Amino acid sequence: IPLMRTTTRCTCIKISNQPVNPKSLEKLELIPATEFCPHVEIIATMKKNGEKRCLNPESKAIKNLLKAIRRERSKRSP
Amino acid sequence: IPLMRTTTRCTCIKISNQPVNPKSLEKLELIPATEFCPHVEIIATMKKNGEKRCLNPESKAIKNLLKAIRRERSKRSP
Repeated sequence: IPLMRTTTRCTCIKISNQPVNPKSLEKLELIPATEFCPHVEIIATMKKNGEKRCLNPESKAIKNLLKAIRRERSKRSP
Repeated sequence: IPLMRTTTRCTCIKISNQPVNPKSLEKLELIPATEFCPHVEIIATMKKNGEKRCLNPESKAIKNLLKAIRRERSKRSP
């Protein structure tokens, strides 16, 4: 669950380890670590209802998701 | 250069292959391929002026950037 981004703290208050289907993903935001939030944050916006989910940057699910998103391009434009 | 996202076409009209320093990055958006835009789009928002840049998802620079962003966490929380 992300909150409004302020410059004084982290955006995510709850982080999910559950995998996200790239097909149901509207977009994925990666926010690098800053002095205000000492770790990278990854926020998934879902197509269906615009729901936002914070994902664990260290989870295997995220590695696979990033791979899947990048792979889409080569699949469609060989 | 990204335009406002509509559901009927791609967001990016110009794509950069230049590397982006993760330290000067406010956030990175990954938008999966859709029926309206057949390739993944990657949009970097810069800290300095909020400038947005479209990056080439297949460039080595992006691979390195994604790695660098994810690595930050482990660096800061061992």
